[in-house]
Amino acid sequence: MLGLMQDWPLTVDRILDHAKAWHGDREVVTRSVEGPIVRTTYAAIHERAKRLSNALLNLGIKPGDRVATLAWNTGRHIEAWYGIMGIGAVCHTLNPRLFADQLCYIINHAEDQIIFTDLTFLPVLKENRAKMPTVKKFVVMTDKAGMAGVDLPDALCFETLIEESSPDCAWGGFDENTAAGLCYTSGTTGNPKGVLYSHRSNFLHTLVTMGVDVMGINARDVVLPVVPMFHANAWGLSFSAPAVGAKLVMPGPKLDGASVHELLETEGVTFSAAVPTVWQMLLTHLRETKGRLSTLKRVVIGGSAVPEAIVRGFRDEYGVAVTHAWGMTETSPLGTLANPTAKIAAMDEEEQLRFTLKQGRPPVGIDLKLTNDAGEPQPHDGVTFGKLKVKGPFVVGEYFKGEGGQILDEEGYFDTGDVATIDEHGFMQITDRAKDVIKSGGEWISSIEIENIAVGHPKAELCAVIGAAHPKWDERPVLLVKLKAGESATKEEFLAFLEGKIAKWWTPDDVVFVEDIPLGATGKIDKKLIRQRMEGYVLPTTAPAPARAMAAARAPRLIAPEPGDFPGKGPQAGSDAAPGAFPARRR
Amino acid sequence: MLGLMQDWPLTVDRILDHAKAWHGDREVVTRSVEGPIVRTTYAAIHERAKRLSNALLNLGIKPGDRVATLAWNTGRHIEAWYGIMGIGAVCHTLNPRLFADQLCYIINHAEDQIIFTDLTFLPVLKENRAKMPTVKKFVVMTDKAGMAGVDLPDALCFETLIEESSPDCAWGGFDENTAAGLCYTSGTTGNPKGVLYSHRSNFLHTLVTMGVDVMGINARDVVLPVVPMFHANAWGLSFSAPAVGAKLVMPGPKLDGASVHELLETEGVTFSAAVPTVWQMLLTHLRETKGRLSTLKRVVIGGSAVPEAIVRGFRDEYGVAVTHAWGMTETSPLGTLANPTAKIAAMDEEEQLRFTLKQGRPPVGIDLKLTNDAGEPQPHDGVTFGKLKVKGPFVVGEYFKGEGGQILDEEGYFDTGDVATIDEHGFMQITDRAKDVIKSGGEWISSIEIENIAVGHPKAELCAVIGAAHPKWDERPVLLVKLKAGESATKEEFLAFLEGKIAKWWTPDDVVFVEDIPLGATGKIDKKLIRQRMEGYVLPTTAPAPARAMAAARAPRLIAPEPGDFPGKGPQAGSDAAPGAFPARRR
Repeated sequence: MLGLMQDWPLTVDRILDHAKAWHGDREVVTRSVEGPIVRTTYAAIHERAKRLSNALLNLGIKPGDRVATLAWNTGRHIEAWYGIMGIGAVCHTLNPRLFADQLCYIINHAEDQIIFTDLTFLPVLKENRAKMPTVKKFVVMTDKAGMAGVDLPDALCFETLIEESSPDCAWGGFDENTAAGLCYTSGTTGNPKGVLYSHRSNFLHTLVTMGVDVMGINARDVVLPVVPMFHANAWGLSFSAPAVGAKLVMPGPKLDGASVHELLETEGVTFSAAVPTVWQMLLTHLRETKGRLSTLKRVVIGGSAVPEAIVRGFRDEYGVAVTHAWGMTETSPLGTLANPTAKIAAMDEEEQLRFTLKQGRPPVGIDLKLTNDAGEPQPHDGVTFGKLKVKGPFVVGEYFKGEGGQILDEEGYFDTGDVATIDEHGFMQITDRAKDVIKSGGEWISSIEIENIAVGHPKAELCAVIGAAHPKWDERPVLLVKLKAGESATKEEFLAFLEGKIAKWWTPDDVVFVEDIPLGATGKIDKKLIRQRMEGYVLPTTAPAPARAMAAARAPRLIAPEPGDFPGKGPQAGSDAAPGAFPARRR
Repeated sequence: MLGLMQDWPLTVDRILDHAKAWHGDREVVTRSVEGPIVRTTYAAIHERAKRLSNALLNLGIKPGDRVATLAWNTGRHIEAWYGIMGIGAVCHTLNPRLFADQLCYIINHAEDQIIFTDLTFLPVLKENRAKMPTVKKFVVMTDKAGMAGVDLPDALCFETLIEESSPDCAWGGFDENTAAGLCYTSGTTGNPKGVLYSHRSNFLHTLVTMGVDVMGINARDVVLPVVPMFHANAWGLSFSAPAVGAKLVMPGPKLDGASVHELLETEGVTFSAAVPTVWQMLLTHLRETKGRLSTLKRVVIGGSAVPEAIVRGFRDEYGVAVTHAWGMTETSPLGTLANPTAKIAAMDEEEQLRFTLKQGRPPVGIDLKLTNDAGEPQPHDGVTFGKLKVKGPFVVGEYFKGEGGQILDEEGYFDTGDVATIDEHGFMQITDRAKDVIKSGGEWISSIEIENIAVGHPKAELCAVIGAAHPKWDERPVLLVKLKAGESATKEEFLAFLEGKIAKWWTPDDVVFVEDIPLGATGKIDKKLIRQRMEGYVLPTTAPAPARAMAAARAPRLIAPEPGDFPGKGPQAGSDAAPGAFPARRR
């Protein structure tokens, strides 16, 4: 027997309809790409988004067509999103930090027909225009004056399209499972893979994030999403802020400490979200300038583990609460948050900190399990490592065009590729990426935990730990260290530094000093490349003397290329919503 | 094109699964019907609910079958709910305050097969056993000792069923639109009508209520739902408390001020929800005993308009925030809440109070519109009356078995039967029930607004305003007053009291003193009955002298029968989630 409640499909256009109807005059403030601060409202955004929808229909866009955005967080980007999604087209958010080749691969794979772009990205689009044959038009997110210098063929002016189109356009009315958004993962193995969000998944993610123990924003909040809209929907804030009627403050292209601080103060921001590096820059700026945070109450930090110093800095110096979160493109992205349970809230501040530094617990709508290699459930004891698997209505079921094949286990869980522990309070902590965990004598060693401790050595700039083959133990850890400029150190100094901080059997069998540690396009340590370069390396604990000498000789050759000078590659590199990278290593 | 996210049906069993997995040791504390305080946990409730599911399956219950509960708010009631819903059966919550005839009508209409009952209600069930032919068994919510005095045929022991059944039972796995719950409206016109909730509607209501600007409870909260589970799911708290891992404190049958206060203090309650009369009793008790509220932070009040004195009492004497809410059985029940917008939050306390006293604004997922009789939208100016209509995924689409026929308008909205205003901040205020509003010269007069003011007269115990036919104006208001014992008053005294407090043209054309004002089974003024009794009444402003004399002579004959002495008819009468009754009138 079916219930007799109303049929009201969960389509995201209803979110902006709601914002217009009940919070129509609430502001959306943007630091524009052109420079000035521009102010608009949800009512105005709603009308302009409807006009854009008509413009897209006039350009021949049909339901299911992919329309891309290559853009910063701005009011216009919000308009483009709702304008695209409202008519059942798919909004494909392009990550401007990708190398041009990857960008073209993704555009072609998605068969994008139109690309909305900020002025910032015109050079790369022009240079690679020939490599994107499916793209018919570019919509440059500027006004007529801004179009003056644009010499990209097939470019249309955003403001002209809005001006010339009717605001009368019906949104929604389709199945709530209709695709709404497309976002590719960075693809550390193989090609990037697309996660195809539905209206339903986005809507449910929005409702879940509105919970107090999730993002918990409300109508009084002023929300500054530093985390980009091209990273899994700015952690949902582009939906949840209009859903609750919060004021939105969009930082545009400027994500440095001074620029973020200016907006926080001038716009009265109460809530923000970003990766640790952004907050590190902000704290550094505040300390240098003796700046204050007079309205900010809460920051959600995710994308990589939060260093303790950031939590303490916010808490003790500025009275701002930090919520640590974990998620990934495949989870829309929120998976867990470290909001305290009643028991944890009853602990003293220092005890609580132990839990704030974990990635936290799932809200209803996210099922987690921890398994060993055989798929058997592992205990929630805070010690036992396991593969982290996730299930839920806003978790990926399969990748776009079936890339990667069947990705769910027989119980319907998606393997996150992370290794984690879960403690008796239900707090999950990422200990490693599965492919980086070191399997020694049947037990697992966290490369990340050793790295995080080793990088605390005053002479270290970057550290990486990988597993090296060992005849008896299968693998043993090797610590790679890039020293700060002008420093020198011995292997023994680093081993002594680790002593007592990690289990004895976790102690690396070797320390190798290198000139650089390669980083991938999203700012994470590229262990795949490190492993390639370490091919032929033999552990001193197993190898005969000549091999040991060879290993030492090879090490200095590890010179990493700098990540490409992609336009717009800002200081926020590393803000990928995927877990496992620890920017603490990057200073 | 459809999205590629996971298929994860929104079924409510997942809520208790989540509570067990992540908040398994969180307490559920009950003041039992037998008397003692009993303590359990979500993990234990989960296991016992699974056992009950097996017991129901063994008793022949199949998906879609209706299983009723006639019970107070207790841990066992929660177990019954999830045990019933988890296997796709429909949990029909019976309101013990109904007259026996209505109760039997509802049981027969629903074709209930099993009734879970508290000890309290055995007499009425026994007396009316022959009138419920569809009922095969009664499950008495007690243990073996409690069964000793039970002499109801076909009675089974709740604890024995649990003891003898396996906890191994698969829940869910069906369409999320499967019926989960059934609740009948009180039916002020015609027969009671059933609202058939689905798993999806309950789940979505749960997610929406978790928002900060809705109920906003979290894992640190200790929640005491005074509002009964038989009134639209205790405003969703039986779902949202386990969903967030809040401790639940269940008051059982004792809802008087002293009993509620004791639980609030001994269990550290932070959040509660009830109708105004309950809070009025609590405040009276606190003042008499010089009691304190040392942990309570927030109360949500709905079911009828909140008197200003309650808001001030909580705020000024006890530091507790009041959130005023509106909803009805047909809306699951939450429709609007008076949580402030940013603009209202910036006002001073006294200004804010004006908005706290309104019913508030809808969360995303609730669409409201205000129309005139012709269905045309009315302005949101805070002055213009309109019919309040509502749409959303947890709003009724049709009544059970099609009672009442097509109940949605051409845009899919359900007419709430309320008349309201909406102001420029989006705050809705109920001004009347549509059938009670007085239409005078093409304009609408709020019977409720006049009643609320008139009852403030020191000599008044209860007041009611109805419309009486008028040859020129169609209708004109008549004020009925029941004086406090021993008082006497003149018509002029009451008219003078109203002067300046309402528009001149709202002034009643007559004041009639009556011995009693009849209340319906849910504690609301029974205007239908008043109108029946006033048949033949003629306004003094229109009638010739003899008729006027007749009217005066008839009035004193209005003697209302007391609502039946139904077992368990507690002091919380009037806690119906439907809007429009104003217990302030009831003292």
